[in-house]
Amino acid sequence: MNPNIYACLVHYPVMDKHGLVVATSVTNLDIHDISRAARTYGLHRYYLVTPVEAQHWLVRRIVTHWEEGWGATYNPNRKAALGATEVLADLGQVEEDIVKRSGKPPVWVATSARRYPNSVGFATLRARLEAEPDTPFCLIFGTGHGLHAEVVMEADLVLAPIVGPTPYNHLSVRSAASIIFDRLLAPTV
Amino acid sequence: MNPNIYACLVHYPVMDKHGLVVATSVTNLDIHDISRAARTYGLHRYYLVTPVEAQHWLVRRIVTHWEEGWGATYNPNRKAALGATEVLADLGQVEEDIVKRSGKPPVWVATSARRYPNSVGFATLRARLEAEPDTPFCLIFGTGHGLHAEVVMEADLVLAPIVGPTPYNHLSVRSAASIIFDRLLAPTV
Repeated sequence: MNPNIYACLVHYPVMDKHGLVVATSVTNLDIHDISRAARTYGLHRYYLVTPVEAQHWLVRRIVTHWEEGWGATYNPNRKAALGATEVLADLGQVEEDIVKRSGKPPVWVATSARRYPNSVGFATLRARLEAEPDTPFCLIFGTGHGLHAEVVMEADLVLAPIVGPTPYNHLSVRSAASIIFDRLLAPTV
Repeated sequence: MNPNIYACLVHYPVMDKHGLVVATSVTNLDIHDISRAARTYGLHRYYLVTPVEAQHWLVRRIVTHWEEGWGATYNPNRKAALGATEVLADLGQVEEDIVKRSGKPPVWVATSARRYPNSVGFATLRARLEAEPDTPFCLIFGTGHGLHAEVVMEADLVLAPIVGPTPYNHLSVRSAASIIFDRLLAPTV
């Protein structure tokens, strides 16, 4: 198990349905569902990324409620899940934090429902995560209608889209993150 | 691809954190996230199951908004996802509907984060789904702290729990359903 896997959920710059750049709002279940999935699959850290200050306050208030407030006693499982979750302003801050924790900058892996020329398959990335346990990898997920192309283009790798048995490919980011963690990190039976 | 796969999300009888039987409330993202995942993986139908009448009204109002109301124009992808979603009062009504659509009652497959003596593994169930395309199968998911034992005991099969590389196993039902659809129904690459 590679102890240096990270994930971040980007709220800016992402696209709206018209392909325009927007900042989306952090939602409560994007915090909880992805934190719980990240904890299940042994990710080192999960970052919510937004430049909006008011949203930092919101995320910290929710995380603190479950980590230290009344919620920590009410549901200790949530405390465990949110212990690795934090909010930062941009991917530069995420990189700084990862360097502090893992000693070097991560291999950035963008995720997308679209296929890019340099897309890497699940089996290939999985093999690399296992072969390089000292290398940090950071999966980047987009909210809204997906990561802006500038983020995808600057990433080191782009993960192939999740393809089901139908042409429909509009999974929620919560579903996509869960499936991607499972495909890359579940123990082989 | 087996065209007779169904899923239902049970809101009663499920357990609370103390193991007591409760009815939970339908949440908006349990409708949307699981509908979108069900559509992606080619499920025939997705049922929300609750005996509470007021919740039937709520689900129908949400589904109708996206299927016929302003939402159908605003986001046609949601319309496509919710076209196979409906709310019913109990598993008896689900069975009736499945018989009407697929000609016979389904093989009921309970899902659980706990391991039961008669748990069936993912590979085994996947092989069975492929081998019996004329047999309807209905996956049962629980809200709250999981399906009540009486539902699990009456099911034909109990699917093995999702196990990640850590002992933590508190995925949201939205994450669990997405991962289970992917493990059972994703095309093999």
